[in-house]
Amino acid sequence: MMTRKITVIASVFIIFLLTFSVSAQTSSWSEVAPGVWKMSVGTPDKLDLFRAADIKPALNALSKLGTAAFPLPPERITAQTGNGTTRLSFPLEKEEKIFGFGLNFKTVYQRGRILQLHVDHYGGTDNGRTHAPVPFYITDRGYGVFINSSRYLTVYAGTGVRKDSPDAPGERDRNTDDNWTAQPYSDAVEILVPTSGVEVYVFAGPSMLDAVRRFNLYSGGGCLPPRWGLGFTQRVPRLYTSAQVVNEAKLFEEHGFPLDFIGLEPGWQSRSYPCTLEWDTSRFPDPLAFIRIMKEMGIRLNLWTNPYISSKSSIYEKILPFTGSHTVWGGVVPDLTLPGAVEIITDQIDKSQVSIGISGYKIDESDGYDRWLWPDVAQFPSGNSAEQIRQTYGLLLQKITTDLFHRKNQRTFGLTRSSNGGGSSFPYVIYNDYYSHEDFITALINSGFAGVLWTPEVRSSKTGEEWLRRFQTVCFSPMAMINAWSSGTRPWSFPEVEKEVKEYALLRMQLIPYLYSEFAKYHFEGTPPFRGMNLEPGFNFRSKQVIKNSDLGEDPYGEAIVKEIRDQYMTGEYLLVAPLFTGQTTREVILPEGRWFDFYTGNYAGDGEIIKVTPGLGKIPVFVKDGAIIPMMKPVLHSTSAGQKFDLEIRYYGSAPGFYRLYDDDGETFDYEQGLYSWRDIHVMPDKKGKIKGTISKSEKGKPDNIGEVAWRFMTVN
Amino acid sequence: MMTRKITVIASVFIIFLLTFSVSAQTSSWSEVAPGVWKMSVGTPDKLDLFRAADIKPALNALSKLGTAAFPLPPERITAQTGNGTTRLSFPLEKEEKIFGFGLNFKTVYQRGRILQLHVDHYGGTDNGRTHAPVPFYITDRGYGVFINSSRYLTVYAGTGVRKDSPDAPGERDRNTDDNWTAQPYSDAVEILVPTSGVEVYVFAGPSMLDAVRRFNLYSGGGCLPPRWGLGFTQRVPRLYTSAQVVNEAKLFEEHGFPLDFIGLEPGWQSRSYPCTLEWDTSRFPDPLAFIRIMKEMGIRLNLWTNPYISSKSSIYEKILPFTGSHTVWGGVVPDLTLPGAVEIITDQIDKSQVSIGISGYKIDESDGYDRWLWPDVAQFPSGNSAEQIRQTYGLLLQKITTDLFHRKNQRTFGLTRSSNGGGSSFPYVIYNDYYSHEDFITALINSGFAGVLWTPEVRSSKTGEEWLRRFQTVCFSPMAMINAWSSGTRPWSFPEVEKEVKEYALLRMQLIPYLYSEFAKYHFEGTPPFRGMNLEPGFNFRSKQVIKNSDLGEDPYGEAIVKEIRDQYMTGEYLLVAPLFTGQTTREVILPEGRWFDFYTGNYAGDGEIIKVTPGLGKIPVFVKDGAIIPMMKPVLHSTSAGQKFDLEIRYYGSAPGFYRLYDDDGETFDYEQGLYSWRDIHVMPDKKGKIKGTISKSEKGKPDNIGEVAWRFMTVN
Repeated sequence: MMTRKITVIASVFIIFLLTFSVSAQTSSWSEVAPGVWKMSVGTPDKLDLFRAADIKPALNALSKLGTAAFPLPPERITAQTGNGTTRLSFPLEKEEKIFGFGLNFKTVYQRGRILQLHVDHYGGTDNGRTHAPVPFYITDRGYGVFINSSRYLTVYAGTGVRKDSPDAPGERDRNTDDNWTAQPYSDAVEILVPTSGVEVYVFAGPSMLDAVRRFNLYSGGGCLPPRWGLGFTQRVPRLYTSAQVVNEAKLFEEHGFPLDFIGLEPGWQSRSYPCTLEWDTSRFPDPLAFIRIMKEMGIRLNLWTNPYISSKSSIYEKILPFTGSHTVWGGVVPDLTLPGAVEIITDQIDKSQVSIGISGYKIDESDGYDRWLWPDVAQFPSGNSAEQIRQTYGLLLQKITTDLFHRKNQRTFGLTRSSNGGGSSFPYVIYNDYYSHEDFITALINSGFAGVLWTPEVRSSKTGEEWLRRFQTVCFSPMAMINAWSSGTRPWSFPEVEKEVKEYALLRMQLIPYLYSEFAKYHFEGTPPFRGMNLEPGFNFRSKQVIKNSDLGEDPYGEAIVKEIRDQYMTGEYLLVAPLFTGQTTREVILPEGRWFDFYTGNYAGDGEIIKVTPGLGKIPVFVKDGAIIPMMKPVLHSTSAGQKFDLEIRYYGSAPGFYRLYDDDGETFDYEQGLYSWRDIHVMPDKKGKIKGTISKSEKGKPDNIGEVAWRFMTVN
Repeated sequence: MMTRKITVIASVFIIFLLTFSVSAQTSSWSEVAPGVWKMSVGTPDKLDLFRAADIKPALNALSKLGTAAFPLPPERITAQTGNGTTRLSFPLEKEEKIFGFGLNFKTVYQRGRILQLHVDHYGGTDNGRTHAPVPFYITDRGYGVFINSSRYLTVYAGTGVRKDSPDAPGERDRNTDDNWTAQPYSDAVEILVPTSGVEVYVFAGPSMLDAVRRFNLYSGGGCLPPRWGLGFTQRVPRLYTSAQVVNEAKLFEEHGFPLDFIGLEPGWQSRSYPCTLEWDTSRFPDPLAFIRIMKEMGIRLNLWTNPYISSKSSIYEKILPFTGSHTVWGGVVPDLTLPGAVEIITDQIDKSQVSIGISGYKIDESDGYDRWLWPDVAQFPSGNSAEQIRQTYGLLLQKITTDLFHRKNQRTFGLTRSSNGGGSSFPYVIYNDYYSHEDFITALINSGFAGVLWTPEVRSSKTGEEWLRRFQTVCFSPMAMINAWSSGTRPWSFPEVEKEVKEYALLRMQLIPYLYSEFAKYHFEGTPPFRGMNLEPGFNFRSKQVIKNSDLGEDPYGEAIVKEIRDQYMTGEYLLVAPLFTGQTTREVILPEGRWFDFYTGNYAGDGEIIKVTPGLGKIPVFVKDGAIIPMMKPVLHSTSAGQKFDLEIRYYGSAPGFYRLYDDDGETFDYEQGLYSWRDIHVMPDKKGKIKGTISKSEKGKPDNIGEVAWRFMTVN
């Protein structure tokens, strides 16, 4: 009775609120960092993405990017609350292109699309349900917008048309006007937040890439993996024993294939789906000894797990009070917004695994499907809604291990099934079961807009050709991995291409100095190491409107589709990678303006043009910018460890003056946070006699210096 | 400032509410009609489905169905509010089968599925987005549940597992237990209502069909179309002129094809997409004369429209204040929850169309897609949310014309693109652009669970075979229609099958007495005239679990799929229709228990068994129950009009005592609401000499009597 009265009173207030709404003013925006503005609308949730990720904005790095003017006309940004919702509107100019909204697999351009941002397994359609539905978009006008919400947001990315729109397209008579369109021009991005308030952020450019940098830096800067994280990794079949894993490492040695860490799949645990987070003593009788043996072979170990706790786990009784109303596969679901739950899990994985030498984790099944995870009617002891827990679960899980390894001053690099806005600094790479090679590349492109990392992992293949094509691309990704959990494949599983596969496995190792420096730029400057061409200066490819179908019977509304470039991308500052897919022998490559050269030969390839390449099965086309400097090392089977010197081969392409900043630190600890790192300047230019000459600066006194001999290789013969 | 304070205060209340929740008790349920219970949770929306449909429960008819006990253990039904949501849970028994949740196209069984009920064009997946996402489900335990909400509901139809579930399936170790499943057994239907209250209804059986009847009767009873509505209808190409339409009718006459009404597509209006709701005087210079000429040929007219108003319409300025914030194709969107908007539209269509003799409408584009309609951020002058307007728009639109024709005491029968719970009494049939023949049949089956009508309309076909197969099924549906708006097809478009097509067009006309009586049972007793086999007594087909794929690589979770019967259905009380699809020459038919006979020959077909049939291209397999009586009339080209007598041929099948109730009234007006109708009993049984004899009762004094000569045809030779 009492409670009923309260509903009534409150509902009166709610009804009152319906009539209440704010329109955002310039004054509503406060600059929280150079080029970063925040607006708070209504009553935002306590749990949002930035709080879940526990971000620590890299303010110094942001200042280096410099100040900027607010990039949008503030009076055209509106925010209204009422009816239990918040409605946001941001202006769009004609022809303005939108990118982002998380890890999409089939689309790069987002204008004209509607997305419901919802953490989920990717289901084959870009509808907002994906592993990282980051509510962040950028446009080619050089700014970004982030909605700091842990709710399922509905995004209308230039679809709705308001009666009072200044750019309303007007109407056409479909009976007689051939220019009638089912989707008239829209001049706004509108977003529905299904609660009574939200925080909104705007990130300035000037370039799109700058807006992405500011977003990543505000999130704390990109992660800096350990050097070994950039080596090669193999995930073994799910029921392998410690003896089989040791043997696996030996086989890599024998075949002369590089290997830095091995991933153990569910069988390492005494039970899985749900999990005990404890070793299975039948398959792993002595984990400590096993880990030591592997370490001696130069191999680290990564452990698969999912977050649902089995009643057979020693922590079950302890964690029960901190779990939600529903189970997943019979396991309880920890409410990770509660410190108590985090502490219990942290203690368990530390005691049982990290303290005896485990180097990282693969956090599985934090994303979906709906029919597997807790329903949205579930309740959690923190009072946070099931929806909010779903949207932040990947972040909360990454944070547990990130914090644990950080406390041990030991870097980690692992895999996560889901993430969200604010997670850039977590040392985790997203993966999934979807396995379309083409769409995996699109995801790699979109990861660069979203502040996340993605690996187009190799599992199995129908042919040697597919195997090699997939392998070639995974070597130009954040994590070079074969995931053999169910297939039992190995790099040499297709003998007909073993030689070519090995060539790329070793090339990956040779590229570590370059990749490591690019990741350092991700961390210190926010620049995504893998990114789409649209972030490249000089990439002016214009999208074409293509009418799908003019048969009214089959397609009554003849809707247009947009031609997108989703099959080539940048690896770091200088490398343009253009994969081929099974069945392809030739493809087109779009070279941005400026002179480009073949990575393998140094030959001139083109300048601001579309070229056709027929590289043969053994090669993945890679092109290099004029003046590019690519620091490489000898092909090694295991990445170098802290303090271990390595020789450099510095490649130089083209004829423009070359400059590169090489990053160096111990590669394993967080001492770089105390300034124990160095940037070394590499220059290549003609000397007085006109002879091309390269120089590399020394590392500062007292800073790490792992560089041995330096050899120069000028790839382009002029 | 002021407003900000209010948010803060209110948010305090909202946070307080998070902790508040009700658990439903028996006492919460009030019996609002025999076998119909209602529970109100929290603070329901003012706008719900029943209010939008303005239902008038058929209480007398409901009493005839008799009383019943509350069909569920009330203590296992829970309802909780808080966090701006309402969470409902209803128990499920082991093996209990769930049907319903609206107009699904690919699935009949709904247990184990998750749906977000959302009015939309059907997009090819049964995910809750469809033209009639009716929040009503029934189970084979013989009861129904309806959520009277105008919100997007998330339904977990037996997927979630609560920690405290009495039937929790427990956990299995996926490492070692082959019986591990990705979707463990769930014992509840859980529903998320995204607002702080809702009304819930429970409908008793005893049979599933009884639960559906109670639902339809509580909604006001099914619609009773005019007799002419059950004849044949042709929709002409969109830019046809009045002269071309007259000529079309002549061609039907010449070819000897039946025709009761013609549908005019967008071209009748001066502008379309958005619409003016006014005649185009170039194509239709004299509508009044045109309508009269057609009437003289025995042809009525139906007008296509969509609800978005063009600025060129004479009602634009008047309706503007009653429209939402966003436009659709440049047209304004009337807020049909406002009487003012309804009045303006009603006046316009009455003045310009209905008052001069137009007989009905095809209401298009009331459903979706999201990218075409107003976004969920749109606001409407009534204060109802965009979501609520979206969910109820089809109901509100049907009501406008239903009420107008009712005031004129003139029945109508038309097409609507969307509907929802409570709409059973609206004389409208749902259609769409999806055009999969197989899935159209599944929709016909599901329409019977949802209190809506659906037509598998024929548009075009690639072959004469496809044309005939589609035509055969549309003749056994609520509306026998060719929609040639873009194809320009006619019944005889494929000369190679013209004879067979005509045979079924005429059979449709012969069946009108039977179909009309079955629709009368829909109206007076709530029995859906077209329905799935699962509503048939004696249909005990058990679903089989089929493992899709055991390759962990391709299907890591080896999820089960369920074999469903979605290719045969009942037309009225006695006819089992089993369509063939293009490419099929033979198929299996599942005959429920009881003896069944071939409709065409009267020969015995089988009893509770699966039979194989090879009917040839010219026939659609139809089977008849033992003792079935099918009242038929002579093949006519136009259905009979009020007062016009027609002769009956009464077919009888099998040998069991036959009984049928034949409905009769003027077929055009609502005088039946004043009791001006009659039910006539038809009996067939052996007389004293053992000779089969049929009798038909007279109609009551002063009641309509349109029956002329009666001929008997005993189809089964014993």
